Amino acid sequence: MFNETTISQQQFKIIENGSVASAKGFLSGGLHAGLKYKNLDLGWVFSEVPADAVGVYTTNIFQAAPLKVTQESIAVENKLQSIIVNSAVANACTGQQGLDNAYEMRHVFANHLALPDHLVAVVSTGVIGDQLPMDKIKKGISQITLGDSQSKAFEKAILTTDTCIKQVAVELEIDGNIVTIGGAAKGSGMIHPNMATMLSFITTDAHIDQQDLLQALRETTDQTFNMITVDGDTSTNDMVLTLANGLAGNDKLTKTHPQWSEFIAAYMFVAETLAKKIARDGEGATKLIEVHVTGAANEQAAKAISKAVVGSSLVKTAVFGTDPNWGRIICAVGYSDQPLDPAKINVAIGPIPVVKQGLPLVFDEEAAKNYLAQEKVELFVDLADGNAEAIAWGCDLTYDYVKINASYRT
Amino acid sequence: MFNETTISQQQFKIIENGSVASAKGFLSGGLHAGLKYKNLDLGWVFSEVPADAVGVYTTNIFQAAPLKVTQESIAVENKLQSIIVNSAVANACTGQQGLDNAYEMRHVFANHLALPDHLVAVVSTGVIGDQLPMDKIKKGISQITLGDSQSKAFEKAILTTDTCIKQVAVELEIDGNIVTIGGAAKGSGMIHPNMATMLSFITTDAHIDQQDLLQALRETTDQTFNMITVDGDTSTNDMVLTLANGLAGNDKLTKTHPQWSEFIAAYMFVAETLAKKIARDGEGATKLIEVHVTGAANEQAAKAISKAVVGSSLVKTAVFGTDPNWGRIICAVGYSDQPLDPAKINVAIGPIPVVKQGLPLVFDEEAAKNYLAQEKVELFVDLADGNAEAIAWGCDLTYDYVKINASYRT
Repeated sequence: MFNETTISQQQFKIIENGSVASAKGFLSGGLHAGLKYKNLDLGWVFSEVPADAVGVYTTNIFQAAPLKVTQESIAVENKLQSIIVNSAVANACTGQQGLDNAYEMRHVFANHLALPDHLVAVVSTGVIGDQLPMDKIKKGISQITLGDSQSKAFEKAILTTDTCIKQVAVELEIDGNIVTIGGAAKGSGMIHPNMATMLSFITTDAHIDQQDLLQALRETTDQTFNMITVDGDTSTNDMVLTLANGLAGNDKLTKTHPQWSEFIAAYMFVAETLAKKIARDGEGATKLIEVHVTGAANEQAAKAISKAVVGSSLVKTAVFGTDPNWGRIICAVGYSDQPLDPAKINVAIGPIPVVKQGLPLVFDEEAAKNYLAQEKVELFVDLADGNAEAIAWGCDLTYDYVKINASYRT
Repeated sequence: MFNETTISQQQFKIIENGSVASAKGFLSGGLHAGLKYKNLDLGWVFSEVPADAVGVYTTNIFQAAPLKVTQESIAVENKLQSIIVNSAVANACTGQQGLDNAYEMRHVFANHLALPDHLVAVVSTGVIGDQLPMDKIKKGISQITLGDSQSKAFEKAILTTDTCIKQVAVELEIDGNIVTIGGAAKGSGMIHPNMATMLSFITTDAHIDQQDLLQALRETTDQTFNMITVDGDTSTNDMVLTLANGLAGNDKLTKTHPQWSEFIAAYMFVAETLAKKIARDGEGATKLIEVHVTGAANEQAAKAISKAVVGSSLVKTAVFGTDPNWGRIICAVGYSDQPLDPAKINVAIGPIPVVKQGLPLVFDEEAAKNYLAQEKVELFVDLADGNAEAIAWGCDLTYDYVKINASYRT
């Protein structure tokens, strides 16, 4: 259901059950190290050769220890060969001991794979404030065997309150070579009983310029992972990594490569698919909400307005209750603090126009209610005041969101 | 329970059952005009003499018609003598007809009282997008008799989804004269099935400089009404008005008057009390949450951080669930995008310190849970990084918030 997209799919193909290990030379797996009661909790990704590596990280000032260590790893030569991820404990707000543990986790895993430390990224997600149980982490790492590559295990090992795994992969032809891009993600609430985090790992066998890839990651993140909201809480551990190992054998992709835009479309599709899967799996969510803003004065305004609408608790509860409350949409647009002319705005709930040039239309409430009962709800806001547009994704706000977040530890 | 305050009460006295009509020369009342099924829905305030008038208005770009008309009234000579308020219909997103109706509502009421139009403020709160039923409004106005002054009726007539009336009044001695300040407010969700609005009306018999009063209103609003959040949605109809009719007979209050600060403390108390009553009556709320931020680098940072914490859905659900989830507090502080040193922060849940210098403390979870079970919950964040401080108020996020907002029209 999430294969619908805003991106033209003509130039790439979706790989059935594709994963973070679909691209040439990548392996991944996961096991139970004992941080969770019985679910998988330690995952890994490995590339047969060092890969160009780029990352974006949470803007939360309480950045967790593993993010610091991973950034240090990448800084050495902009390469990574492996990623180790634990769930259940975020290693955030853990001071010097937390930092020491993150270094040790990196070192133990690097040692296990006979890699230099700086080719390893270390990632944690889970409870804030607890120290990593290093005995369990080390024992778990010692049990990792690259031959046991099984992506489903990786996809499961990185989850916290998520209700489902999140993966995708696509392939396209570049310079006559098959290039594959795949990824896995986790994220449900931004944090949950102090459970942190939106994480995403994207791998590709493309040969690509590292600086251009970094810029592509940033721009893609701005249009995908940064356009989703579950509850507005930005965690201490959010991170998106991309590894490109070059094994596809294509000519080096740069912005001037004739197929650059094809690669970017495929890369964006992978990111957008993962982002939408995260939004749909928001804590307690029953629906994916997609807000389209068009005709904005500039892109920043389009983004801010679409995020204000999809983030509004009143819009989210209205969608949950299948109530075609366009006043809440208008209200959220209005407090987003962006340039617009109230007398020009048009609003539609799915296919049903409800506001034209700032004034309410008579519409079929029953049809609107039926539309809102669908599992994917699209809201359209046309500002008729420029050419910029944006899309944001979120989910409805339900009893279960309150239940999950109010009663977890009771 | 809301008489506790951050303001020294030594210099003023709370009037039992005080109201918007406690100050000399003010009357108020309300009646059922038929906009609601059976509750009161049309309220009025009247001063025996024209009063200096100041207002602050929503920043939502879809400002409702009555706000435009009221601002026009005040602009004529900075005076008002009466206010007419209807609930049930917000007269927002109603175009030229809505504006015409607001003018007519003002004119009919002014005519009824034999006042010039510009001495009347017109206020609406309720469903966005519907036109005012002018027949009912006009018939209701024709039934208003100043002799029927009854503040409880006014307090009820302005409510929408509120569960209780919100009023307060205080008196203090200035220049040997008793000066009274009283007020009424409404507000529950920021909007609800398109029901708008936070409204507050403050009256005083003080003789006071109009420009200084305007500045005082702005500064007070920034520290009170602008520091509360129920769901983060700023309505199209928010308005705070203050009328000062001078009948107390004091020497004109200006910033250089020796008792200026006493008056301001009393005025601030009235505003803060009303603001807290609104926060506590947030849709579905069971608790008032008060977040104290101290040691901030500057006031703007203190305000932003306190509002981020009190507005966090995860903090709000944790308080509802009596879960001492300090990680969520830290996380909200961290994404507020303000200058601070993570290694200096101290956090307490009521009397219980939970984080010291950025690191978790061992604390009695049971005691913290018991504290969070109280009807008023205070959270303390000390940044130890400056001298600025702020307080923000909000409420817990409960099943009933979702219920109220998801199922109203179904």
